[in-house]
Amino acid sequence: MRLTSFTDYALRVLLYTAAREEQLTTIAEMQKTFDLSKGHLMKIVHLLSTEGYLHAVRGRSGGVRLGKAPEDINLGQVVRLTEPDFRLVECFGQVNHCIISQFCKLPGPLNQALDAFLETLDRHSLRDMMLTRDIFEPTMERTFPQRGPSFDLDTETI
Amino acid sequence: MRLTSFTDYALRVLLYTAAREEQLTTIAEMQKTFDLSKGHLMKIVHLLSTEGYLHAVRGRSGGVRLGKAPEDINLGQVVRLTEPDFRLVECFGQVNHCIISQFCKLPGPLNQALDAFLETLDRHSLRDMMLTRDIFEPTMERTFPQRGPSFDLDTETI
Repeated sequence: MRLTSFTDYALRVLLYTAAREEQLTTIAEMQKTFDLSKGHLMKIVHLLSTEGYLHAVRGRSGGVRLGKAPEDINLGQVVRLTEPDFRLVECFGQVNHCIISQFCKLPGPLNQALDAFLETLDRHSLRDMMLTRDIFEPTMERTFPQRGPSFDLDTETI
Repeated sequence: MRLTSFTDYALRVLLYTAAREEQLTTIAEMQKTFDLSKGHLMKIVHLLSTEGYLHAVRGRSGGVRLGKAPEDINLGQVVRLTEPDFRLVECFGQVNHCIISQFCKLPGPLNQALDAFLETLDRHSLRDMMLTRDIFEPTMERTFPQRGPSFDLDTETI
């Protein structure tokens, strides 16, 4: 089970622009900071701007800043926006050939589980996640810890 | 956000073998029922057998049947077993280059959300999901409804 890298980087873009407060951020700066393709970043910035999460200022000295107060951006809303789909199983998608889908009882628990996932994220705002500006500077000394669930240890079995 | 088709079909294999009760099921029968490759099914059956969810009987008239009582198989356990990973964001995986991962506060809510997802599935057993045997028969008249979340409607925006 994964979120897309689109969502992952959208969250980083919001954290970065939040840390810079009123200072405008360009795609070029994000590209350098996150080592991500311009095309990918442009799609993310376009969607977040269209939906009001970023405010874009055009022109030579333009860029983006956060379009809402960080306390008004919650993680669940962002993930619902940036994930292309929530196709947990075949019948959740638009193309469904599963022969049992008409009778199957799995969609109930799966939809409940998805709601529980998103409602947990709804309880957290970007304000709670904010980082200081220096953390994004190239001069910062870094480590790259694994931060995921502890139970995901036996992937070799598959 | 998706589960893998491996998990999707593992759940179908369990529902199918549960519906057939003591009658053994062969890979060939599953292949015909689900229109899935033999290789894919063999990996699923192998994993489910290794972990005791299926009981394999060898030989010419062999096959598999459920290895535990349906009330002792819960959906959360199956999904934890069959998903190759739960890499919601880059730092949840084994290869992590995210520059903010040491300081980032997102893993807390994301791990909580993942726990909420799996704990919701933990509350449902295969017994609650069981279907009658006739539903798997090729003679059954079928429809293929969409069973996913109602909020996933604007994927064209990305």
